[in-house]
Amino acid sequence: MRVTVVGLGPGAGRDLTGRAREALEQAELIIGYTAYIELIREEFSHKEMRSTGMRKEVDRCRAAVEEAVAGKDVAMVCSGDSGIYGMAALVYEVAQEYPPIEIEVVPGITAACGGAAVLGAPLTHDFAVVSLSDLLTPWEKIERRLICAAQADFVLCLYNPASHSRPDHLRRACDILLAAGKAPDTVCGFVQNIGREGECAVLTTLAALRDTKVDMFTTVFIGSGQTRVLNGKMVTPRGYLQREN
Amino acid sequence: MRVTVVGLGPGAGRDLTGRAREALEQAELIIGYTAYIELIREEFSHKEMRSTGMRKEVDRCRAAVEEAVAGKDVAMVCSGDSGIYGMAALVYEVAQEYPPIEIEVVPGITAACGGAAVLGAPLTHDFAVVSLSDLLTPWEKIERRLICAAQADFVLCLYNPASHSRPDHLRRACDILLAAGKAPDTVCGFVQNIGREGECAVLTTLAALRDTKVDMFTTVFIGSGQTRVLNGKMVTPRGYLQREN
Ligand SMILES: C[S@@+](CC[C@H](N)C(=O)[O-])C[C@H]1O[C@@H](n2cnc3c(N)ncnc32)[C@H](O)[C@@H]1O
Ligand SMILES: C[S@@+](CC[C@H](N)C(=O)[O-])C[C@H]1O[C@@H](n2cnc3c(N)ncnc32)[C@H](O)[C@@H]1O
Repeated sequence: MRVTVVGLGPGAGRDLTGRAREALEQAELIIGYTAYIELIREEFSHKEMRSTGMRKEVDRCRAAVEEAVAGKDVAMVCSGDSGIYGMAALVYEVAQEYPPIEIEVVPGITAACGGAAVLGAPLTHDFAVVSLSDLLTPWEKIERRLICAAQADFVLCLYNPASHSRPDHLRRACDILLAAGKAPDTVCGFVQNIGREGECAVLTTLAALRDTKVDMFTTVFIGSGQTRVLNGKMVTPRGYLQREN
Repeated sequence: MRVTVVGLGPGAGRDLTGRAREALEQAELIIGYTAYIELIREEFSHKEMRSTGMRKEVDRCRAAVEEAVAGKDVAMVCSGDSGIYGMAALVYEVAQEYPPIEIEVVPGITAACGGAAVLGAPLTHDFAVVSLSDLLTPWEKIERRLICAAQADFVLCLYNPASHSRPDHLRRACDILLAAGKAPDTVCGFVQNIGREGECAVLTTLAALRDTKVDMFTTVFIGSGQTRVLNGKMVTPRGYLQREN
């Protein structure tokens, strides 16, 4: 009958919107990756839930669509936003193979917005969002996007900065940005476990970031030429004050 | 004592997160641009509120910081996210001129995420966010960012696509993207009044977008080379299904 793809925000709980909470309350079955199901298990313990392992994205979406075809009201949960590196696109793709069902996407606070709020205000001017995972995207394409983002002087927000199989992606990305002309003292920051236990934010520079190890639960921010540190916070001014002076 | 910069999401109401609602409940004074105050006036009618006109950003932030210095718990509200083209950076900047206060940023669903959910799943791969307002940014810089975004094959999300004084910004942006090599049949979409009365989504192509008039309450999405229309929705696949085949 219907699949609602629901973004939980970085930490679920207080990060949930009213719409997301309503969608979960209304669903007969909640499907998602184990770690995300854990985030809501307590609050929605009265609901039928089904969790699947990592890298089982296609199976998970097929299961959701098949239950909907069979008449159920299904919620598919994602951390952060349901679109940004989430399951929304795949649900639309998989649904093509089945009789028509209703699909609704409920947005959530994405790691870029959640992490930015912890660091200060790094995303108050134009920015680009790039995933460093080359599981589904050729590394050459990621490299080209990083170079163009440097040339555009975008603030850059990096998702999937590391994984067990490729621990050096962040170092390689920093080297590409430095070679593309970004200053070694560009203001950078990263936030681990946004909205979750162990939330931890670090301010640094591009040169130092190159030699930093981060894990997969981290979102990385690389400033534009305008980004600065104000009172220990990472801030990219929009230009209101500069116009005044 | 404190300024909390709170993102209301595109439509406030059901788009508010639990954290945003708590921050508003806790504040003694809520300050914001008139149109955003209107979004929450009914639900928070028991609160002291102060609204200021458009283009009064610096005054608004000064007022918030001054009330906080005087000991009040102040919430400054923004539509969408509090960081993305919001007031968070300016509050940090203005606060530099005053005795120290506590500043907290509470993220909200930004128009990119809210609009993407209405259109389908256009932002499921790497993307860039650019404001077409040249009030605070030289047009040459906007132009360069658009060209680089085209070269990177980012999905593009455009804020402030039009204003009374510059009704032709979107047309100029489309011409720049076409000249930079983006295909005229690139899948595009835009959403007006996301999460508000009169919400309205349109799917189109880059060639047709060039000749379309949109207003300032619109967010525009320009696809990458991978973006397609599936069942009337704008979808940028991440590549899971393509890997399977
Ligand atoms: C598959 S993507 C999912 C993104 C998610 N849909 C969103 O909108 O935030 C996973 C990546 O998102 C980022 N991320 C998601 N949740 C996070 C959190 N709570 N803290 C830090 N980073 C997070 C990390 O970069 C992580 O490697
Ligand atoms: C000054 S910016 C504020 C952005 C806001 N802080 C956010 O994160 O969504 C104003 C622009 O955001 C976009 N926008 C904000 N709210 C919107 C809504 N409800 N519907 C459509 N576009 C919106 C439009 O492009 C508008 O011109």
